[in-house]
Amino acid sequence: MKTHIKLLLVLAITALFTTQSFAEKKVKWKLAMTWPKNLVPLSTPPQRVSELVKEMSGGNFTIKVHGKGIHKAPLGILDMVKNSHYEIGHSSSYYYKGVDIATAPFTTMPFGLTTAEQYAWYYYGGGEQLAKKVYDKFKVDIYPGGNTGVQMGGWFKKEINSLEDLKGLKIRIAGMAGEIFSDIGANVTNIPGGELYTALDRGTIDAVEWVSPGMDIRMGFHKIAPYYYKGWQEPASEMHFFVNQKAYNKLSKVNKSILQSAIKVATAEMYTDTYNQNIISWQQMKKEFPNIKVKTFPQEVLQAMKTSNDALMKKYSKENKLFKEIYESQQNYLKQAREWTTISEYNYINTSNSVK
Amino acid sequence: MKTHIKLLLVLAITALFTTQSFAEKKVKWKLAMTWPKNLVPLSTPPQRVSELVKEMSGGNFTIKVHGKGIHKAPLGILDMVKNSHYEIGHSSSYYYKGVDIATAPFTTMPFGLTTAEQYAWYYYGGGEQLAKKVYDKFKVDIYPGGNTGVQMGGWFKKEINSLEDLKGLKIRIAGMAGEIFSDIGANVTNIPGGELYTALDRGTIDAVEWVSPGMDIRMGFHKIAPYYYKGWQEPASEMHFFVNQKAYNKLSKVNKSILQSAIKVATAEMYTDTYNQNIISWQQMKKEFPNIKVKTFPQEVLQAMKTSNDALMKKYSKENKLFKEIYESQQNYLKQAREWTTISEYNYINTSNSVK
Repeated sequence: MKTHIKLLLVLAITALFTTQSFAEKKVKWKLAMTWPKNLVPLSTPPQRVSELVKEMSGGNFTIKVHGKGIHKAPLGILDMVKNSHYEIGHSSSYYYKGVDIATAPFTTMPFGLTTAEQYAWYYYGGGEQLAKKVYDKFKVDIYPGGNTGVQMGGWFKKEINSLEDLKGLKIRIAGMAGEIFSDIGANVTNIPGGELYTALDRGTIDAVEWVSPGMDIRMGFHKIAPYYYKGWQEPASEMHFFVNQKAYNKLSKVNKSILQSAIKVATAEMYTDTYNQNIISWQQMKKEFPNIKVKTFPQEVLQAMKTSNDALMKKYSKENKLFKEIYESQQNYLKQAREWTTISEYNYINTSNSVK
Repeated sequence: MKTHIKLLLVLAITALFTTQSFAEKKVKWKLAMTWPKNLVPLSTPPQRVSELVKEMSGGNFTIKVHGKGIHKAPLGILDMVKNSHYEIGHSSSYYYKGVDIATAPFTTMPFGLTTAEQYAWYYYGGGEQLAKKVYDKFKVDIYPGGNTGVQMGGWFKKEINSLEDLKGLKIRIAGMAGEIFSDIGANVTNIPGGELYTALDRGTIDAVEWVSPGMDIRMGFHKIAPYYYKGWQEPASEMHFFVNQKAYNKLSKVNKSILQSAIKVATAEMYTDTYNQNIISWQQMKKEFPNIKVKTFPQEVLQAMKTSNDALMKKYSKENKLFKEIYESQQNYLKQAREWTTISEYNYINTSNSVK
């Protein structure tokens, strides 16, 4: 070969190899979420992660979001991610307490940590390492995926003045709060979301717990059950992203970093978005239905709930060592954290509400 | 030319062009921050942004962080970014109230919004657009850059039992709170940070306001001034990133998205980091110095502060139309937001602290 042709060949090969190294292989993931397509704010974080990952990778990494209308298994997200049907999922850890009760504390606990306290515990107080212990068994990584803040205690048709008033009361309330209500004498039922309004209207149930004003407003309970009780059972419900570890390990360093940042951005945004929605929706509800009465449960009811909750925690702790470890870690952190929260945030609200 | 050589040539040229389009041009930015190199948690967000931008861009976009030891102008960050000496800065908006009083409300306001309320106002209640109005004049973009949460009211050598006790009291307190203390009779001085401990020890001053336990602990005031007053003046101090608009506009779409996400991640992390540091440091202080007394200012003092604050706000509102617009926007949002905060977070802390 002549020299200039040889040179051309070297150039072509070099250029091709360089191209290869710069052009990240296209990565296409699918995400399954517990929620239907547009159930804001819960469906927002996965959509945001999809958007941000695409933008930051210049289109090299894309994530297609499937709502429950497509995969038909709203509470099967962990399984689908574990079994590599989806690389990533969006749900909440406590939906899998049937699989392992140790998943529950990462969402929220009755009388547990507030949102700020819970994030501090998770990232700096050992929570993240404990979550890894639980989820490594499924070969799944877990990440916080957005927080609802304090959830309300529910809509009641009649005022609750004593523990006696709860005896036989027909209430729809899920999770640990349901077990507690049942333990203190209520009649807990689990009617699907779509039938709740009619059930409440017809007296099939006397009370219903849903979320907080931003999501409750669309359910319409405030039109037919005027007593809106303040929350104790879900002070800081966290949603979660689940990521299949095998799929994650195949990502380039760049895509790993992009995915992690996208998740953190979407997570932070959901809390703020929800906070604003609760503010706006509460104002709207109150304006349209001025007879809504915001109530605190009587002290004897709250104390009964707490006593029942403590017994439940003891039972779970006996059954599951890892649950015990997580619960104790949260409780130890809570004792210290709550002192600061009370001195700072709680006192500030007190002070600034007290002046004119 | 023979066909195979022609083909080779086409291949070489194509490959070269492709390489060009994949290889993002290297972007090297410099960041100036108000803080010294390792003043955690304030110096953490810029370091994190630098780290994340590098990771997510695969090293194509780097940001070198300069502490005040290098640029020597801790309160000149806005100027340096405006004048393109640095592409990006990390500081806090209210440090520039001498340039424009309308910068102040984006950091925090006495008796103002809490952290959650302030983010909700900023992103969903019109705050971001108002910040743009203020900073567009400097051709600078502003982004939230980390929040300290509620700051404490300061360390006092003697207990404050009445408004009278503040008359002539020598206190080091900066910003609007300083103006208010001065207005209600105190003798406000501004001694540099490094000399404060000695000044407090020798009685040159009677009280000092700094930040909150996480940062106060290093100053040692708790060893010599046992009354730790709860906060009213800075409920949610936000740090900020400033970005030179010309430099930003030169970034590729990918790098713009990476920068924005990195900023949001670092911002969210600082609040949680600070919250944890306050929890831990408060426990440590209390253990080492059990005689620290956490106090609320008497109601007549708080009311005098509020009345003085309202007069100050009126004065600024008269002087500066944009300040007036921002202040009113915050106050309108606060009225609505505080109802929800009181029903949810405040009540929850109340409830969960009330049971045993």
